[in-house]
Amino acid sequence: MADKKPDNRQVLIDSLPEGKLAVDNYKLVSSPIPVAGDQEVLCRTLMVTIAAGSRAGLQGSASYAGAPKTNIVMNGTGVARVEQSNSDAFAVGELVVCPSGWQDYSVHKTSHCTKIDDDIDIGHYLGALGTNGLTAYFGLLNVGQPIENDTVLVSAAAGSVGHLVGQIAKIKGARTVGVTSTTEKCQMLEAQLGYDASVSYKSADFRAELKAACASGVDVYFDNTGGEILGATLFRMNQGGRIACCGVVSQYDTSNPAGGPRGIPGLLINKRIKMQGFLVFDYMDQYRDARSQLKSWIKSGQLNPVNDVVEGLEQAPEAFVNLLAGGNVGTRMVKIAD
Amino acid sequence: MADKKPDNRQVLIDSLPEGKLAVDNYKLVSSPIPVAGDQEVLCRTLMVTIAAGSRAGLQGSASYAGAPKTNIVMNGTGVARVEQSNSDAFAVGELVVCPSGWQDYSVHKTSHCTKIDDDIDIGHYLGALGTNGLTAYFGLLNVGQPIENDTVLVSAAAGSVGHLVGQIAKIKGARTVGVTSTTEKCQMLEAQLGYDASVSYKSADFRAELKAACASGVDVYFDNTGGEILGATLFRMNQGGRIACCGVVSQYDTSNPAGGPRGIPGLLINKRIKMQGFLVFDYMDQYRDARSQLKSWIKSGQLNPVNDVVEGLEQAPEAFVNLLAGGNVGTRMVKIAD
Repeated sequence: MADKKPDNRQVLIDSLPEGKLAVDNYKLVSSPIPVAGDQEVLCRTLMVTIAAGSRAGLQGSASYAGAPKTNIVMNGTGVARVEQSNSDAFAVGELVVCPSGWQDYSVHKTSHCTKIDDDIDIGHYLGALGTNGLTAYFGLLNVGQPIENDTVLVSAAAGSVGHLVGQIAKIKGARTVGVTSTTEKCQMLEAQLGYDASVSYKSADFRAELKAACASGVDVYFDNTGGEILGATLFRMNQGGRIACCGVVSQYDTSNPAGGPRGIPGLLINKRIKMQGFLVFDYMDQYRDARSQLKSWIKSGQLNPVNDVVEGLEQAPEAFVNLLAGGNVGTRMVKIAD
Repeated sequence: MADKKPDNRQVLIDSLPEGKLAVDNYKLVSSPIPVAGDQEVLCRTLMVTIAAGSRAGLQGSASYAGAPKTNIVMNGTGVARVEQSNSDAFAVGELVVCPSGWQDYSVHKTSHCTKIDDDIDIGHYLGALGTNGLTAYFGLLNVGQPIENDTVLVSAAAGSVGHLVGQIAKIKGARTVGVTSTTEKCQMLEAQLGYDASVSYKSADFRAELKAACASGVDVYFDNTGGEILGATLFRMNQGGRIACCGVVSQYDTSNPAGGPRGIPGLLINKRIKMQGFLVFDYMDQYRDARSQLKSWIKSGQLNPVNDVVEGLEQAPEAFVNLLAGGNVGTRMVKIAD
């Protein structure tokens, strides 16, 4: 018998969640390894991101990701090694960032692949140097615009974007307060991630604790959650404050999103608050400079990204479900191959 | 018997409204005419503004106007004639804008009085050249920032601020759509106030009609109302749209304000919307230039402010209650004396 060719293991969306996302909304299948066409490369996925924002793509409601589908490979950005190349621009063995999805192998047009250097932990390309880091960077600096001694509040503060926002705000001279889900995570925010103060939104005294932690009010709120945390924060904003609307993680994992926070637009007027949504893709022409800045902060030790690595493609659905329940610290990614 | 001195008729706040404001929340009293002290002037009120924003000052909830009180003269900006002056800077007979309140006579420090020219209808100083016009001007141009061919949507479009926003937006080359309360007012928006299209929010098909009237979406929404209109408009905003949050008239006349609109912050993110509250007082250092621009637009006929003049101080409470019910077109003011 001939040697069996290795399969391409793929995690497909099997069904759309009606309430909370569950592991069995996914299925693991095997298919033949695809073949690269002209000006395409075959990539072997080494690491793939598990991103909370992908939950929106599974939702029937309005989302920038378009209408949801089943029986397709779950999307996700990966770091991959070129295994086969039909382009002079890419050599076999080179490392790239590509929209690999949750699978072992994928074929891409070269225009969809970005070469990366191996002078730094490759996980950072999915974290601080990837969409998360760029989101933190542009959302905080271009939308939130903190100045020295501002109080910057961050929700989902231990998360993939949040933990970088807090650190970048510190680099810019702000005082930082993180909102997270548990007292254990609060301790970690202060001990490991450099936050000046922290609050658990699950605390019975959340509003009072938020007020105490932000004794001088909030100048910049980097909002990854929306919902109750946004609602409570509106009352703590200082005059002229800025709210950078980055994500709505409180509303992703449900098919019945809650109403908007009270106090809008009344509090926005009384306090002259600017509330602005953004998507990182709008800053694409500035990615190169931002990545260069972020990389230099990492190399100098000013920025310490946390990569939360789960081992094995088959663990991806559980890693995602757990992420949505607030289980991660830093950027969650799944290691698929060396 | 000596001649009876004329009384100072005053409209006092008699009680705070628990639900909707009513005429009997006010009472008309007479008191002696006050006497000006050093560096003060005695003013005879000629016209006084009836402003929807004053309703917030009667509310127990958070408001920039501070905590409400009873048995005080209802506040309002007036045009007045100086009757007695203890200041070299003001001569008897000169016209001023001052915080007259709803009364015949009031005494002010000269620093609270602004001299005005009589080269234009004096009502304009309470409308297009007063807080309403400045609010329209700064909110639209500094916060909304319309560019040529933008679609600018205005709620309370026939109102004191709204009818000026629509006209200024037209001067800046935008297409304008007004939201108002009745089909009669819609016709008037288009026939008399220069709006390109209009929608009644009381229509059973409001959302569909709004969509049809804003076929290219909404680039700038000048929000005077909040509530349902804001909620519906969020779904019509174009990518990169701006919402200038000016007022919350939908929430003023109630002691139980509704929750915030759905879609916040989700839609703000998907569409990269900027939503910003403002108060006109923050632009005080630019008032002079703005007034000069507004006056030149009026004199050139490009801006046609509508002054909705009600005759007689005793009509002020009814004029205010009716204003809050959406009964006015343009800037409502009460004429008290010639």
